Amino acid sequence: MPKEDSRKWEDLGLVAANGLFDRRAFFKGGAAFAAGMTSYTLGGSARSQALIDDSWSRVPGTPTGPYESPSRFEAHVVRTMTNPNGEPRAQQSRTPHHLLDGTFTPNGLHFVISRSGPPDIDPDQHRLVIHGLVSQPMVFTMDSLMRYPRESRMTFVECGGNSAPMWSPEALDASAQQLHGLVSCAEYSGVMLSTLLEETGIDPSATWLIAEGADSLALHRSAPLSKGLDDAMIALYQNGERLMPGNGYPMRLLLPGWEGNMNVKWLRRIELVNQPAMSIYEARTYAPILPDGRAYQFYFLQEVKSFITQPSPGLTMNGAGFYEISGVAYSANGRISKVSVSADGGQTWAQAALQEPVLPKAFTRFRAPWRWDGGPAVLQSRAWDEAGHVQPTRAEIVAARGEASRVPSVNGFPSQHYNGPTSWHVGADGEVTHVYA
Amino acid sequence: MPKEDSRKWEDLGLVAANGLFDRRAFFKGGAAFAAGMTSYTLGGSARSQALIDDSWSRVPGTPTGPYESPSRFEAHVVRTMTNPNGEPRAQQSRTPHHLLDGTFTPNGLHFVISRSGPPDIDPDQHRLVIHGLVSQPMVFTMDSLMRYPRESRMTFVECGGNSAPMWSPEALDASAQQLHGLVSCAEYSGVMLSTLLEETGIDPSATWLIAEGADSLALHRSAPLSKGLDDAMIALYQNGERLMPGNGYPMRLLLPGWEGNMNVKWLRRIELVNQPAMSIYEARTYAPILPDGRAYQFYFLQEVKSFITQPSPGLTMNGAGFYEISGVAYSANGRISKVSVSADGGQTWAQAALQEPVLPKAFTRFRAPWRWDGGPAVLQSRAWDEAGHVQPTRAEIVAARGEASRVPSVNGFPSQHYNGPTSWHVGADGEVTHVYA
Repeated sequence: MPKEDSRKWEDLGLVAANGLFDRRAFFKGGAAFAAGMTSYTLGGSARSQALIDDSWSRVPGTPTGPYESPSRFEAHVVRTMTNPNGEPRAQQSRTPHHLLDGTFTPNGLHFVISRSGPPDIDPDQHRLVIHGLVSQPMVFTMDSLMRYPRESRMTFVECGGNSAPMWSPEALDASAQQLHGLVSCAEYSGVMLSTLLEETGIDPSATWLIAEGADSLALHRSAPLSKGLDDAMIALYQNGERLMPGNGYPMRLLLPGWEGNMNVKWLRRIELVNQPAMSIYEARTYAPILPDGRAYQFYFLQEVKSFITQPSPGLTMNGAGFYEISGVAYSANGRISKVSVSADGGQTWAQAALQEPVLPKAFTRFRAPWRWDGGPAVLQSRAWDEAGHVQPTRAEIVAARGEASRVPSVNGFPSQHYNGPTSWHVGADGEVTHVYA
Repeated sequence: MPKEDSRKWEDLGLVAANGLFDRRAFFKGGAAFAAGMTSYTLGGSARSQALIDDSWSRVPGTPTGPYESPSRFEAHVVRTMTNPNGEPRAQQSRTPHHLLDGTFTPNGLHFVISRSGPPDIDPDQHRLVIHGLVSQPMVFTMDSLMRYPRESRMTFVECGGNSAPMWSPEALDASAQQLHGLVSCAEYSGVMLSTLLEETGIDPSATWLIAEGADSLALHRSAPLSKGLDDAMIALYQNGERLMPGNGYPMRLLLPGWEGNMNVKWLRRIELVNQPAMSIYEARTYAPILPDGRAYQFYFLQEVKSFITQPSPGLTMNGAGFYEISGVAYSANGRISKVSVSADGGQTWAQAALQEPVLPKAFTRFRAPWRWDGGPAVLQSRAWDEAGHVQPTRAEIVAARGEASRVPSVNGFPSQHYNGPTSWHVGADGEVTHVYA
């Protein structure tokens, strides 16, 4: 029994085509709002009907245990995994963005890429060594690290290869999880690397650092020392508890906003040097070939990006009427300053509301009120950051970086760091699919 | 091999007795810092010794599964549970604050109290009914609720009985988890109750609401309608994913900053009325008797409070030298404005640093640098909120509310809502214990 009051809808005022309303109407208490949908009204006599005494209300429940897990009715809210048996090659676990809300990713669902499996590290045996172009090389035990001053910060980590399917010449039939599941956001607490480098001292000739993990590949990456002295952290906690094994337990290097692979997990060594290591990940894997034949190398930043998570593929529209369009935006260049959404494939735009607090280099949840008329629509989002950058169109970024069919690379895609828009087609049957628009 | 450079310590400047330093020294990059502790320095020849090839680095690791869990080395980081077998009485699970960092509680470790066990609710069958003094009673399915505009906010939830052991005339031998484990903080996303009440309309005679859960007790509480129209939320998500079963899955009423028991879990019904229900929880359980014989009833707010989580009982000091004192502060009256810490039982105080962003009605992590001289010390914290309130001393709050030995009540303690200070004694042997000071 849908309830509808068209007068209220008119009061809100359309601001873009195909049903997009003023965001302010929904973030101020006073505005009228009409939803209805599958809720239904009750007559006075229907009260007893509504107060159903469901089966679960008739028996005592079950304690939730020392470490609680989601309801069995949420068993589908999981990461999709490549290589689930852990064969000796890369393994990806992708965040189910379409099933989440809020501004960060719970620990069970944070994305993971590992190249040789998360090692089973005993923190009491683990050591962090800082050496190379320092005044005094030092070894830090877990106990000693835990005594240093700590800080907490919310930040996203995104794989350079996230959204790689967007380089395909044809839009793949894929969800937000499949396309963009290699980015997540969490609050990390730990010791600033600059604090430890004050302990070791820094030789004036040092310009880079090499960070190395304790995984069986000893995965290592180089980063300019300036980043190490800026906001780099030796992260020990993730969303309040110690790091998850796949996220680098017992410690990872956190380089907020920089390419995920550089945020070295299972961190055991930082060496100050005067040139990069040219490890395989910076020399080959994350150095794709551009259309002009040059390598796209040492680009570091995960630039401004956004995508809509609701509605999106895997969620089916349940009849015409009101829906909230919602998604995440983020930028390595600081805070998100604006997100616009379109319901007509990018021809007209409405400004979305940004969930406060808007934090630098962290997910920003955006929301926009939308009235679906039941006909075809194409939803898109576009984000700006406080440094003035904006997401490029897909045509712009493909022109600069190439497209998969023309320049195949190691992983079948010519480039990483896709930060163009994503378009979701809403069909008259309520199905949501990925398209290029 | 502790490293020590006493000159650096002098540079920092003591600001309170017994080793408390200026907080700003540690939150600015330029300040010298001396820690050392159990870290040790390496000679050039020792490099190979440090780069140990530990057993976990010699074999590929294991993928972390579709929903990740903490490392087996963190198996002790769990909630302590009363009544773990779920006998038909209340069951408490307490947050292990001493083992956490950051500004909120991960979902696995959020505190839970349930009076008859968390019901196993099928969200597709569950209904939320809003009725009573409304223009139009309505029933909301999960599907319909998911289409309304949502908001996200970080907030703490605290049981009115948290810290009840602090009413004991003698300081109990207890940890932060045992004393204060019935408060947690999370980011909730959901639909503002005011949005739904715009749908139903409100009869002018309505002044209260009664919220009822779908547990086998049909636990219900009353709240002034003004709170329902202010920041009350029908919470659907907790830290990004759907609510945990113990936390009210699939929905709970969130009344930010108000007594935990009022934040009704497994919410199935909200009735607008013109007087409170006088349910057992407001008429008896959370209406303790004051020294003058009156009942302390309908007090709602969890007022400004703080406690130190590191160091605290369960953590052993590992030799003299630098430690960071860290803890959480929160207030139903808005943002925390200041936290002071003492290392001499409250005689002298140093201002702690507050981790940004400081959000209203949410945990604020405070941190203060401390150099332990190896002798006895008594650590305390005291918080202020932006409304101008400050934590009372224990003597003040006991004078107002009574003490357990004099006015026994249903649960052995005369009152709830203890928000006085907590004192940790640090012994020369490094043991940390609870004392009154």
